[in-house]
Amino acid sequence: MLKMVVDTMGSDNGTSATVPGIITFLKNHNDVEIYAVGKIEELEALKDYPNVTLIDARQVVPMEAGALDVMRAKDSSMLVAINKFLEVGADAIVSAGSTGGFLSSTTLKLKLIEGVERAALISPFPTKIKGKKVTVLDIGANNENTPEQLVQFAKLGKIYANKVFGIEKPNIYLLSNGAEDGKGSPTVKAAHKLLKQENMEGFKGNIEARYALDGEADVIVTGGFEGNIFLKGVEGVASMMGKMIKSAFKRNIFSMIGYLFANKGFKEISETMEYKSTGGAMLLGVNGVVVKGHGSSDAYSFSCAMNVAYKMAKANIVEQIKEGIKENAK
Amino acid sequence: MLKMVVDTMGSDNGTSATVPGIITFLKNHNDVEIYAVGKIEELEALKDYPNVTLIDARQVVPMEAGALDVMRAKDSSMLVAINKFLEVGADAIVSAGSTGGFLSSTTLKLKLIEGVERAALISPFPTKIKGKKVTVLDIGANNENTPEQLVQFAKLGKIYANKVFGIEKPNIYLLSNGAEDGKGSPTVKAAHKLLKQENMEGFKGNIEARYALDGEADVIVTGGFEGNIFLKGVEGVASMMGKMIKSAFKRNIFSMIGYLFANKGFKEISETMEYKSTGGAMLLGVNGVVVKGHGSSDAYSFSCAMNVAYKMAKANIVEQIKEGIKENAK
Repeated sequence: MLKMVVDTMGSDNGTSATVPGIITFLKNHNDVEIYAVGKIEELEALKDYPNVTLIDARQVVPMEAGALDVMRAKDSSMLVAINKFLEVGADAIVSAGSTGGFLSSTTLKLKLIEGVERAALISPFPTKIKGKKVTVLDIGANNENTPEQLVQFAKLGKIYANKVFGIEKPNIYLLSNGAEDGKGSPTVKAAHKLLKQENMEGFKGNIEARYALDGEADVIVTGGFEGNIFLKGVEGVASMMGKMIKSAFKRNIFSMIGYLFANKGFKEISETMEYKSTGGAMLLGVNGVVVKGHGSSDAYSFSCAMNVAYKMAKANIVEQIKEGIKENAK
Repeated sequence: MLKMVVDTMGSDNGTSATVPGIITFLKNHNDVEIYAVGKIEELEALKDYPNVTLIDARQVVPMEAGALDVMRAKDSSMLVAINKFLEVGADAIVSAGSTGGFLSSTTLKLKLIEGVERAALISPFPTKIKGKKVTVLDIGANNENTPEQLVQFAKLGKIYANKVFGIEKPNIYLLSNGAEDGKGSPTVKAAHKLLKQENMEGFKGNIEARYALDGEADVIVTGGFEGNIFLKGVEGVASMMGKMIKSAFKRNIFSMIGYLFANKGFKEISETMEYKSTGGAMLLGVNGVVVKGHGSSDAYSFSCAMNVAYKMAKANIVEQIKEGIKENAK
């Protein structure tokens, strides 16, 4: 049995999303023991599931909380969940609460895997190729990274694409301002050199943000600051265009009729651009599977976040990273 | 009469786009003297216009050229155009050729305005508010910037929004990984402090990439590396979704009928997301108006690039920057 700790509070929709999310998850998984942490009276619906243990915690960490806020909030669902993770030696922890608070406090308490300099936040993006995702990291765990850290991120991303997505030989790129070898910020240029020097298998050079979602890349490596700008820029435009499509169909009676005829293709677009099914973002490099669900998670999206955590735990991703890093240290 | 030098070669469509682009421009402007540089036999169609001087140049600078390549290509339309600019004391220069080559060689030859540390590439982006654009800089003239350079970019952007877009009090933001004051890369954090310290009018703090196109910001300041990732990420997703919309309508006979009913709204989307009408990108901070048209310019897009150059020259943008920088040096 895998052990998964779930912080049920702190997201926009709180337990009204996470509780049905857990129930959905349980329909497809009977080999997981779940520790659900939150206001116990809101977890009622879970109490008859044999694989679920309910743990009461009364405080909710606010969205803008940092690591220290979490550490001080002794009775918060987030800190109680993290402590439970350590206490029972769990495999995975999932929360849709404060991103900053969750990432920094799990990093502090679970600790970095030996040899890992910085944890990286990773998320799969949709691409032009139907069903294919590209894994981008770091999308925001760090404000600044060294070339050596980018090299490590390339390794973490490779292990992830390999073990979680089952891609035998992932194509790895550095996100840059041009495809040519000499392009990039000083940090990216130096990372490029290091990756070339050690002849990393699968490293294909630089990629421009314009082509990042074309489907050629399996892993895209970036510093956390630029990665966050890329992630949010892409999300912003996708949401802007999604709204424009909706209002184009809502213009008048004719456009609504148009929707009746054309809706299938548009459903496909929204499924492709849909970030819900990715569940959220994963923190790689710490001693445990850490998945951060979307702050705006609904039940479906939260169950997807749990699914991702399950897949990562099943793939033994933490052990894989430990070995990968050790091998490189030799 | 304003003097505008036009490099007619080097873009994907060459003179077949730039020559009709010039003709379109001339229909609406009779107060501009144009120096059209390129293979003279391809400029035939321009020879009867009284305000056009044709200048023969035989070489085409390749797209991937750098400054040195341009400097060495003595008979290239780009270098001949730049030299003509200096010789006649022109107001503006427009090219749709090699971006790197054009930006670096104009910076070298026209020189930075006194007091300006780095030139910045600037481009207006569409926003959720119909007709409203947001000016983002630097989108790629630099690989790395200091906090002080970002502060200067804020000033350049403010002058641009004020003088070219006529916005009396532009709202200025720093692109960051969070809206809170303490968020950002070390460079962004330091720039934030400097802007607060000098109490810059209109500076509103940080903005996340997700909200950059919401229409609240008039100017968004970023380092060239991240700015380029933002620009290209946005362009990439917009083009990806544009193609998805097209193919959704092309699925089958029903979806095509749907298009007949709903097309008006979709034409509006493509006009909003259309980068052609912005003409291209402008280099701010050098002694002259420098406009880089899209490499894939068609006649319409190239005439828009010339329009932007015209507007900037009319607004006396170079003098405005000189004064703005001088004032700040006091």
